[in-house]
Parts: sequence; structure tokens; C-alpha cells
Amino acid sequence: MQALKGIAASNGIAIGKLKLCVKLDDKIAKKPITDVEAEIKRVESAKEEAEAALNRIYLDALKRVGEENSMIFQIHIMMLQDDDFFDAIKDCISDEKVNAEYAVWQAAQQFSTMFAQMDDEYMRARSADVVDISKRLLSCLDPNLDSGLDSLKEEAIVAASDLMPSETVQMDKSKVLAFVTEQGSKSSHSAILARTMSIPAVVGLCDAFSSLKDGAMTIVDGSAGDVIIEPDEATLKEYEQKRDAFLQHQKDLQLLKGTKAVTKSGVEMEINANIGHPSDVEMVLENDADGIGLFRSEFLYMESDDFPTEEQQFEAYKTVLEGMKGKRVIIRTLDLGADKQVPYLNIPKEENPAMGYRAIRISLDRKELFVTQLRALVRASAFGKLAIMFPMITSVEQVKEIKELLNQVKADLKAEGVAFAPDFEIGIMIETPASVILSDLLAKEVDFFSVGTNDLTQYTLAVDRMNPQISSMYDPRHPAVLRMIQMAAENAKKAGIWIGICGESAGDTELTRFYVDIGINELSVTPGTVLELRRTVQQLD
Amino acid sequence: MQALKGIAASNGIAIGKLKLCVKLDDKIAKKPITDVEAEIKRVESAKEEAEAALNRIYLDALKRVGEENSMIFQIHIMMLQDDDFFDAIKDCISDEKVNAEYAVWQAAQQFSTMFAQMDDEYMRARSADVVDISKRLLSCLDPNLDSGLDSLKEEAIVAASDLMPSETVQMDKSKVLAFVTEQGSKSSHSAILARTMSIPAVVGLCDAFSSLKDGAMTIVDGSAGDVIIEPDEATLKEYEQKRDAFLQHQKDLQLLKGTKAVTKSGVEMEINANIGHPSDVEMVLENDADGIGLFRSEFLYMESDDFPTEEQQFEAYKTVLEGMKGKRVIIRTLDLGADKQVPYLNIPKEENPAMGYRAIRISLDRKELFVTQLRALVRASAFGKLAIMFPMITSVEQVKEIKELLNQVKADLKAEGVAFAPDFEIGIMIETPASVILSDLLAKEVDFFSVGTNDLTQYTLAVDRMNPQISSMYDPRHPAVLRMIQMAAENAKKAGIWIGICGESAGDTELTRFYVDIGINELSVTPGTVLELRRTVQQLD
Repeated sequence: MQALKGIAASNGIAIGKLKLCVKLDDKIAKKPITDVEAEIKRVESAKEEAEAALNRIYLDALKRVGEENSMIFQIHIMMLQDDDFFDAIKDCISDEKVNAEYAVWQAAQQFSTMFAQMDDEYMRARSADVVDISKRLLSCLDPNLDSGLDSLKEEAIVAASDLMPSETVQMDKSKVLAFVTEQGSKSSHSAILARTMSIPAVVGLCDAFSSLKDGAMTIVDGSAGDVIIEPDEATLKEYEQKRDAFLQHQKDLQLLKGTKAVTKSGVEMEINANIGHPSDVEMVLENDADGIGLFRSEFLYMESDDFPTEEQQFEAYKTVLEGMKGKRVIIRTLDLGADKQVPYLNIPKEENPAMGYRAIRISLDRKELFVTQLRALVRASAFGKLAIMFPMITSVEQVKEIKELLNQVKADLKAEGVAFAPDFEIGIMIETPASVILSDLLAKEVDFFSVGTNDLTQYTLAVDRMNPQISSMYDPRHPAVLRMIQMAAENAKKAGIWIGICGESAGDTELTRFYVDIGINELSVTPGTVLELRRTVQQLD
Repeated sequence: MQALKGIAASNGIAIGKLKLCVKLDDKIAKKPITDVEAEIKRVESAKEEAEAALNRIYLDALKRVGEENSMIFQIHIMMLQDDDFFDAIKDCISDEKVNAEYAVWQAAQQFSTMFAQMDDEYMRARSADVVDISKRLLSCLDPNLDSGLDSLKEEAIVAASDLMPSETVQMDKSKVLAFVTEQGSKSSHSAILARTMSIPAVVGLCDAFSSLKDGAMTIVDGSAGDVIIEPDEATLKEYEQKRDAFLQHQKDLQLLKGTKAVTKSGVEMEINANIGHPSDVEMVLENDADGIGLFRSEFLYMESDDFPTEEQQFEAYKTVLEGMKGKRVIIRTLDLGADKQVPYLNIPKEENPAMGYRAIRISLDRKELFVTQLRALVRASAFGKLAIMFPMITSVEQVKEIKELLNQVKADLKAEGVAFAPDFEIGIMIETPASVILSDLLAKEVDFFSVGTNDLTQYTLAVDRMNPQISSMYDPRHPAVLRMIQMAAENAKKAGIWIGICGESAGDTELTRFYVDIGINELSVTPGTVLELRRTVQQLD
């Protein structure tokens, strides 16, 4: 028996045989060729085949993990169409007179290294994607180079150096009991997909990885980050019980559908879901959320090559409002900038983008964009229970300016004879320290607050949550952050408005009691967490 | 008469003839040469001459503007010794067979463009320095290419496209009445030097600049940013009166030396000076400050190629403590990181350095560095009235950890038989929102607070103060910031400790009454502002 410790990436316990995926490096041979043209033709047809495969994967992923999580495959298709990459492959074949497989792998190393060294976060993330599309090309060139993850013969725990997003999403869920990887972190793409697909996973096993053996009986505890190889009888029994308890718990949660999140002492908490795309509504309904606490409107801007039109936005908002059948949908206006950039906004490189030109600052600076979004939102209000929320507020003046714009939009639409709900709520994100400290004044201007704990934590502590050098300092449970939330809650109560939390720590069950105690009225979390959180509230006395 | 509006860069009013400095671009001709070797020799002797001149300028600047402001010339000497730059000049001469002047100017453009495009703030700032050293080389190659600013024949208002630091500091103060420039901002190096040297200045005149005429009678109002060309009689008279009033005011301030900053109702405010280098003590004493409210210890680290030793630090602290003759000196421990980087700390590139690995985070992470600094500080306490201040505090735990380390250092020194003051004060910077919100708890741990308004403003509003896209949002008078300061002041008072302000808005006389009202006990400002602020306090009722 051998116990390994990795990073807990996706909850759940699996017990089964290990299927070890061999590293591609060891499989790709350099072979001399004579017919350069024929070899280039092989690459070209592999490219066509890969593109068709990616299109299939994309459509399949849409159904399995929703549109936001599937966007990555559209990026892959675009990258596959990049001429520079293919020129590098062709040059390698013709200059070095080598086989296509070797040339693809060489170009993959070259481009992924290049991307990895770039200064831009977005471009750095493309490094893994180059490897992903290269692997796809390789499997089209030679079926033996396929990872085989989408055609497993029997149930297995998959172990790989790293899993590409396309490999993760293609896994046959009925066969893959869990996966463990050498690389990756809790926030890497594959880890996120594993959680969305409810596959237990442990990542970042690092050096311990070399001791894994193909076919070995293995336990994966994705909640604890534990991997146990060839367990003894007692351990096996222990984990079988744990696994059964976990599955039972999952089943039990299903029974909570249709119930309310009310504490034993009778305090009700509204539990909503956060979504990033209209197609996510299905998951919201499936998990029986009370409504949508945060619909991020960024996807409209990030999926597009240019600003989305009023009509495009209206259709998206209407779809969600209709889909939610009268349950409230809180839509947040544009929150681009910082780590969410779109090229056509042309934001110059910033020294500290998290404290830069972003969110409502862009909206109030480029009013034509903002008014277009407001018009689309107000028009959509006729099709469900809308609420609008504004991000990154730092002053009362901003809110007054927004309300004036909104009134103008309403007046214009009325004059145009367009129908809209007369009385939808408006609210603001409480995510800057300024908005907390001015929350007594801000509460008089709006119908609700929603605390964005991620940004509030980072500004309050002056800790960039993405910075690995100080990651241990990023603490959403820090007393300063909790006091900030409490101050906003007290001021909301005094002014008679409601207050929710839509940041990541809304789902932190260690804080649920605190939230109830300070008078938080709503929590909004990822759809898959709604029932778990409902249970936590119901068990509080 | 013509009125131009620029950026007010340095207070004061000047009236005199304009001396227009011709742009170098128009003076440098491209000439063919035949004797490449002779031309390269010309460059080499110009380089030697320039180096000698820069050494003289450095020594002269030391006396005129202090060591911190003179450091730039040491950087220039280093840049002048850079082989890459000289190879580019020599290659241009030998490849293109052109004169040295043209080759120097070509290399200057090339290198300054290269620096300007770099990703690193420090390297970008070197762009202007390349032009500066190139101009010096050119004036050594051909005296006609000299700007002539250090040898003005009569009193004049100097107008130039941009002024290099070396040009500014070399100006003959008895002849330069004021300067106006086309480029530059309030925080550009030349503007800072102008303020230090008390020369009125208006910068950033942009397009208006082309209408300036050599020899024209001109008024410069450096406080308002106004430049008036060929004024009429009435305007001239008006500004002569303004100038005389300004000069009288300056004289009056001198009379305040030896007095205290006490309001008419008897509230006393301690007015201290901020310094960045031991040599600044002279300016502090000259301006009769009550003490030093902030001595930044960064210079020790930034002037050095490696960590300064305990002995080097001890000597620097001791010099300042002795120089202040029993007046209190508050020394802040290392505040590197963010926009103050030293190469040997090897901080990886950060996405948001202002919320990154900096200040006390480095000290508590690399305790060997911190203990060295603490030992030097405690030892220096035997030579004056020391107080130690810690930057970027976000939690009570940090302060407890610091106090433990400090106690250990004291115990060690006692065991070694080294003398130190037993009872010096310790305090913390209040510059993160967390430190404000926890100020009731933090006040129980320390002897004083000092509010760093620059960082507090930027974190509270989530606005990077260096970001030109949102510069209008950076507002130290924002109600959220003022409430934060008030909260810290109330908690300081409750705990019976004193509270000061050492950020830039300590010198904002519009806020002085507010500070008095909320119970601020101390303000610390640049030495040149001490008397002005004392006057403001004395005039409050």
C-alpha cells in the first residue's frame, strides 16, 4: 500500500484499476522521409480531420458542460486554422526531411514555449491549448498516438501527466471513475471541467506520479486530495464506506428539490445560482435554485469580434428571463477589463489592471455602449422578473448618474412605444472598500446590495488573488473582510433593502451561520452547489 | 497678448524675456565622412569628457537638491559606460560613413524607442535618460549643440520642448527665472526638481508651444499653470503685484521658524518632514520641522547592488538620529516591491504589483533581511529619539509576529552587551482598508498610527494612481477615503494612541481643518511644505 498526496480538485471517491497514459514524448519517433509533398499532404488531411473532430467535441461539450465551458473548443478551432503554426510544421518537414508526427510535435513544443513566455495572461494560457490541438493532430496522423480516453474498454481511474480540456470533456463518464494528474492546479481548466462533470479528481501529484503502476488497484479521494495505491483490505473497506456515504449524500441532496432554505429557527435564505451563459439556465433549473443571483453579461462581449448589438443582447437576456419562468434573474452589466479583456475594447496595457479601467468605469466612460446594454435590459424586463446590478461602484455620484441614464432609456423606450416592466429592481455590487464604507448612503439609492467577495477580499487586503507569491494571504474569511460584509449588511438593514452575496465565499459553508447571523438575505453560488448549501441552511439552528 | 494654459508644475511667478531652446533635431546635420577611425576617436573622447562632466554635475547636485534627487546622475554615468550603446554609434559611423553627431543622435532615437517600449516601468523611465546622455555627448562633440542653459548670459524664462534632469539641475538659478516645457507632467523628474529648487515652472504646454517667440516678454504663473506672452500694461502690473505678494509670503513663512503649529483655539499639531535619504536632514532642519515623520529606508536597498549590511544600515540611521538632535525620527522598515524594485530581490513579474509581494510581506517572508534591519534600527536607537514604523499591515497577527521578532532582537543585543534605548515607540502605517477596519484591534498593539493616504486611496477606490486612463478617479479627498481616516482616528483616540498622516494629502491645506476636527495629531510632509502648513494650522480657529 502506498499513499500519495495531491491537490483535491473535484469531490468524490473512486475505487478501481489505474489506467496509465503513456507520455507522448516517448511514443513519437523521428523518422527520415523522402517524399516531402506526401508528408505535407498527410498533415493537411490530419488538419481537416482534427477540425471536424473539434466541431463534434464542441457540440457534444455544449450538452455536457454548457456553453461557457465549451468556448475553449472554438478557440482551438481558430488556433488550428493558424497559418504560422502550419508553416512551422511544413518547414520542419521540408527542411529536415522528417515525418509529420515528429514535425507536429516539434512545432507544438516551439509554439507552446513561445506562448508560455508571453507577457499577456491570455496568451500564456494558450500554451496548453497548442499542445492540446497538436495531440489531436497526432491522433489523426496515427491512431496509436491517441490517448484512448474516449474509448476506454473498461471502468478505470485515468492517470496522465496532464489532461487537456478536450481530453477531459471527451472522457466517457460511464468508464472514467476518476482522474489523477501530475500537473495542474485547483483552478486549471481540467479541474474546473472535472467539477462540472462530477468526476472525482486529484491533480498536481508531481514527483509522486512516477510511482504509479498501470493496472494497480487504486483509491482516489478527490475531496481530500488522497491517492492510495494497492490499498490493504481495511483501507479498501474504509473507502468503500466513504464512497457509499458520499453517493448517498448526493442522492439525499436530490430530495431537497422543492424545499426552501430555512434555518431551524425559521430564518429564510434565498439560494440562487450564478451563471455565465443563457445555456446554463438548464443547470439552474435542474438544481432547483430559487433564481439567478448573478448572470454575468460578459460572454456577449467575449464571444464576439465586436460590440454585441442591442438586438443580440436583448435576445440573450430574454432567453434567460423566459427560461426562468418568473423567478428573479439579476443581470450584471458589463464587467470587462482587469483579467477579462476583449481586443476590440483597445484597453492599453495597464500596470495594475485589477485597479484599472474596468466594469462600470468603462460603461460610464463609453456611454454609447452602456446605453445599448441598458436598452436591451429594459426591453427584456417585459419577459420575466428582471433585476439589474452594477459592478465596481465606488461613489453615490456614480449611482445617481446610472439612474439618470436608466430613466432616460425608459423615457426613450416609452416614447418609442416599447413595452417593459415598470418596477424592476436595481442593485449594486459591494466589492470595493469604498462601497462598504459608503454603504449607508448607497443603500438609499438602490433596491439591493450583492457582495462580490472575491474583489472585496483582494482590495481590502491589497492581495492580488492570482499572485502565487502571496496566495496564502488571500483569505476571504479574514476578519477585515467579514467586518466589511457585516458593515454593509447593517447599513442595508437600516435602509430596509436586501443584501446578498455572489462571490465565491457565498458557497463557503463554514461561513453560512455567520451570514445568517448578520442578516444576509441571499446567497448565489454555482448551480451544482445550490442543494448542498440549502441543506447547510436547513441544518442551522 | 496671448494666454497659454499648461500644467502647474512648480509654484511661483516669474516675469521676463523668453529664451527659446531650439530643438536638437533641427541642428544636427548628416554629413558624409571618410576617416572612420578619426570619427570614432571623436566619440570616444566626447564620452570621456561627458563622464567627467556628469561626475561634476553629480557632486554639484548633491549640494543643491540632496542625494535622493542626485542618484539619477549616477545612473547616467552607468548608462554612458554601456557597450551596446557605443557599439551602435560606432557601427553607424563605420557602416554609413557619417559624422559622429548624426550617429549619436541615431543611436539615441533607437535606444530611447527601445526602452520606451519595454514592459518594465523602470526600463521605460530610462528612455528619457538615453536622450539626456546623448545630448551631453553631442555638446561635448560640438559646443554649438549645447543647450546653453548652464551659461545663460542674462535672466530669462527658459522654454524647451522637454528638459532633461541634468539640464534642470544645472540651470543657473540666478539667471533662470522660470521654465516652461512642451512635454512633461506634474510628476516628471524635471517638475520634481523644479519644486525642490523653487523655480516656477509650467509643463505640458503641448500644441500651444509652437506660438512661443524667442525674446518675447513673458509671464509664468507656476501656481496656476498660466503662461502669458507679451502681456498688456494692466496684466503686467497685476502679475507684478502677484509676484511681489508671493515673494513676501515666502519671506513671511521664514518668520514662522521657531513657532509651533497651534490653532487659534489651542489645538496643537505636530508638523514633521518626510525624507528619503540621510542627506535630507539638512533640509528638515532648515525648514524647522518638529521632527521626521517618515524616513523611507528604501534608498539603502535601491542604491546598492545587494542587501545592505547591518553596519551600513546602522550608520545611516545613526547619522539621521544624531543629525536631528533629539527630535523624533520615525523610520519605516523596507517598503520595496510594487513600483520600487531592486534586481537582487528577484521578485517575479506580477500581474498587479501594487497588490503583490511587497513591504512587510517581504520582511515577514524573508526574516533574515528583516532581522538585519531591526538590529540596525534598535542599535541606532541609542543615538537619538527613534520610532519604528511598519508598512502594509493587514492583520493583528502580523503585528504580533513583528513584536516577537523585535523582542528577540532586543534580547539578542542585550545579551551581546549592545546599548539601545529601552522604550522607543513602534507604529504601523494605516494604508490598507483592512488596517482601517481592524484599527480598534491594531491600536491596542502599537504606540501610533500613520496614515499612508496614497495607498489607502488607491486600495479603497480600487484605482491605480499611476493609471492615466482613470487618473480623474484617483481622489484622496473622496468621502470614502476621508471616512476611512476618520475611523482610524476614532479608534486611535479610544485606545489612547496618537495618529499622524504621512501620505501626500497630509500637505493638502484644504483638508487641514478636517484633520484637526477628527483628532489627527501629526502631519508629515516634504520639508519645503512644513512652514506653509504650520501657517495654515495657526490660522485655523
